Amino acid sequence: MILADGVLKVSRRARAEIRAERHTGPTAGLAPGFVQANLVVLPFDLAGDFARFCDYNPKPCPVLARSEPGDPSFPTLGEDIDVRTDLPRYRVWRNGDLADEITDIRAWWREDFVAFALGCSFSFEQLLIAEDIEVRHIKRGTNVPMYRTTIETVPAGFFSGPLVVSMRPLRSADAIRAIEITSKHPNVHGAPVHIGFPEQIGVADLARPDYGEPIDVEAGELPVFWACGVTPQAVIERCKPPFCITHAPGCMLITDIPIEGNGVEIR
Amino acid sequence: MILADGVLKVSRRARAEIRAERHTGPTAGLAPGFVQANLVVLPFDLAGDFARFCDYNPKPCPVLARSEPGDPSFPTLGEDIDVRTDLPRYRVWRNGDLADEITDIRAWWREDFVAFALGCSFSFEQLLIAEDIEVRHIKRGTNVPMYRTTIETVPAGFFSGPLVVSMRPLRSADAIRAIEITSKHPNVHGAPVHIGFPEQIGVADLARPDYGEPIDVEAGELPVFWACGVTPQAVIERCKPPFCITHAPGCMLITDIPIEGNGVEIR
Repeated sequence: MILADGVLKVSRRARAEIRAERHTGPTAGLAPGFVQANLVVLPFDLAGDFARFCDYNPKPCPVLARSEPGDPSFPTLGEDIDVRTDLPRYRVWRNGDLADEITDIRAWWREDFVAFALGCSFSFEQLLIAEDIEVRHIKRGTNVPMYRTTIETVPAGFFSGPLVVSMRPLRSADAIRAIEITSKHPNVHGAPVHIGFPEQIGVADLARPDYGEPIDVEAGELPVFWACGVTPQAVIERCKPPFCITHAPGCMLITDIPIEGNGVEIR
Repeated sequence: MILADGVLKVSRRARAEIRAERHTGPTAGLAPGFVQANLVVLPFDLAGDFARFCDYNPKPCPVLARSEPGDPSFPTLGEDIDVRTDLPRYRVWRNGDLADEITDIRAWWREDFVAFALGCSFSFEQLLIAEDIEVRHIKRGTNVPMYRTTIETVPAGFFSGPLVVSMRPLRSADAIRAIEITSKHPNVHGAPVHIGFPEQIGVADLARPDYGEPIDVEAGELPVFWACGVTPQAVIERCKPPFCITHAPGCMLITDIPIEGNGVEIR
């Protein structure tokens, strides 16, 4: 569903700013009301395995769209999207090592590349805020903290690796409501995977996230962990594909798909 | 919905045992698969206020059925139910004080009495067990621990008082699933009201419940608190109606209504 032009301007304008490299950082809080997406770009010969990996791991990797080989557009997510320019920041990976972080991947694009757009927690955060639940990293203007866990994803062909989670500190009543709300939205990670005991999922120190920025958990708050679309990056580090590209954590693709609340499915 | 006779026998047989006073204790785990109910019996002149109190406080007081004045039956909950004999144990209240605990209230029945059947967490426990979530007090064969909280109910006319909660210790992943499951069943208390920090809701010592029996919360588990149908008893203690009758905590009315899982509404 694409809204009328007047409403679209918010997401299109945000993409235009990003395309022009006037915005090159995290997209949390940008174009509120529109679905954001994680990006994974792989050569065609690995795309089949990755599609299966996503099928087996729908919580971290809910597929919103998959491009045709060589085609950098996502027509179902927005009319003018070009995934080579429309994200603020990309990560280029060689043999599982981070080779570069850049703001435009046109120079690296290949005719055998397939792009996957995966649902992102920035979308459900808008639903939480709409229910008066404070999302602290948005209030602070920082990137959400993300952690590699000791929870293993379900492997598929070439791909296997640890689950990555994002963490939001919430008071008890808000945590319960956040679970109720997000469980209705499987396309943007669904219900949390853990609550309360970071050490049980292999997170030794909340103050030292593997991605993003730390956020304080105050006394009387629970750390609530959701499966995260950065999981494929931990998988890439483990499995070492010769070459691939992802978004940089927190720097997402803004789509023209409106987020709808009250139990209505996001896509 | 009433099932065929063969299936009904489980709940009817349990009621027959109770009516014959061969079972005079808690009903947790009895007649699995059938909805159980809390009981509140009030004179007609207070029934209107109590009905409003239930409307305002649907989490602790979800009304499954309300009897006609003087009529001890609940035809929508089971064909042969007589609320004067079909619960294992009753509490008789005079001016807010517990006057007696008895197994039959026929001697006290009056033509102006109205009976309310309220949804009970013993019903959703069956849904949790069906999803392989351990409900420890059932496994141990003890009564669920219940606590008066510092959370106030919404007052209605004569009635006001503290929310009473039941507590189940759960590991994180089970707590999340239990929230997802119970949030789909508002007729049996719905989602929890608190998780994690007993002191935030005025529960100073988990080992000393106000009703029921204590249960250990192990390291790495979260105490999860649901609104409880014993709330009217705390309200009665506060508001001191001249005379009324309730079930004894844990000793419920077993109905012929089947519990249905997988998101299907219980009634």
